[in-house]
Amino acid sequence: MRVPLEKKVLNENDRLAASLRERFSRHGVFVVNLISAPGSGKTSLLERTLETFEKSRRVALLTGDIQTDNDARRLARFGFPTRQISTGGACHLDARMVERALEGWELAEIDLLFLENVGNLVCPTSYDLGEDARAVLLSVTEGEDKPLKYPATFHHADLLVLNKIDLLPYVPFQIELARENARRVQPGIEIIEVSCTSGKGLDDWRGWIEAHRAARTAL
Amino acid sequence: MRVPLEKKVLNENDRLAASLRERFSRHGVFVVNLISAPGSGKTSLLERTLETFEKSRRVALLTGDIQTDNDARRLARFGFPTRQISTGGACHLDARMVERALEGWELAEIDLLFLENVGNLVCPTSYDLGEDARAVLLSVTEGEDKPLKYPATFHHADLLVLNKIDLLPYVPFQIELARENARRVQPGIEIIEVSCTSGKGLDDWRGWIEAHRAARTAL
Repeated sequence: MRVPLEKKVLNENDRLAASLRERFSRHGVFVVNLISAPGSGKTSLLERTLETFEKSRRVALLTGDIQTDNDARRLARFGFPTRQISTGGACHLDARMVERALEGWELAEIDLLFLENVGNLVCPTSYDLGEDARAVLLSVTEGEDKPLKYPATFHHADLLVLNKIDLLPYVPFQIELARENARRVQPGIEIIEVSCTSGKGLDDWRGWIEAHRAARTAL
Repeated sequence: MRVPLEKKVLNENDRLAASLRERFSRHGVFVVNLISAPGSGKTSLLERTLETFEKSRRVALLTGDIQTDNDARRLARFGFPTRQISTGGACHLDARMVERALEGWELAEIDLLFLENVGNLVCPTSYDLGEDARAVLLSVTEGEDKPLKYPATFHHADLLVLNKIDLLPYVPFQIELARENARRVQPGIEIIEVSCTSGKGLDDWRGWIEAHRAARTAL
């Protein structure tokens, strides 16, 4: 009974996302959609990324939450254009929310746009935001079975960031098994290991952004 | 546009949940609905609970997942009636799924029923399952702001289980702030601190179950 309406909503979202993607492409904006469970460290990863950027770097951020503007406040400290999207109860961002939040920004002045999705391993999956790449974060405290339990989310990801690896000595997480599980649902997924506390792996993450941004811009 | 249909689905769920609640009450089944983000430790907490129960204990479990029966297999090892509910993509259990999964079980032979919800801090909130009590788990690796970012989930909870406290020395989690934040959205919430690794606090959790079950049965 709900399916036809759901489909209509998704078709409408896909149409809007395609239009966003065309605009991003035309203005040379590389867009990363970050998805994870609540508390996997999306905001921390962005903080550690922004703190290393030159102030002249043309980066902008949209961060989605059901409630509070905590994340936007944490990220705005770095001086780059940052806006909070309040989803009004929805468990994901959608293309319409992104389109509205971009109003007043000159896309031609942005090279890199981060979309921090609502903390959720289910709902954001079906909503294309016009992004170039989708990065899923999984922290090592969450268990290595998550790619199998939330396969759609990992299947549609370009990158898996295994976060909080500084906690590996204290948790029973088998990192090789997590990699295997992710590859079972998405054989082509890239995987990097990161700790926002120790800083380990952050170079890999920044390298991934730059490489994919360059490849995208070269098209 | 989606609101009226959503409302209809929720009304139908409330009707079914009321009927389940009446059945549970009639047969003296105490029902706990466990909600958390993916990887907060719902299944581990249940494992540590079941391992201490006498084999004659009249406990049963339903565990919800989008995909895989990992959790049901982990829990069935303890010999108590356990069933997996595959939600077919839905990010939460609903009363209809619970009703169907109970088919063939004699409620009169069950004193305690655990409903392990899908790992999600948003969707399960609106779906009453006819439970007596709702327990939300938050692990200390997830950040103390989660009650403010997912207020509806914490507002509708009777108990907050702060899990993985063995990791407190390694994460910047301020446990007093987490307690404050939870009380801001739900002043009456009970809070216990648990580690499924060290076993600390598990007595408090089992004590909470027994006390509430006894109080409920005495009605």
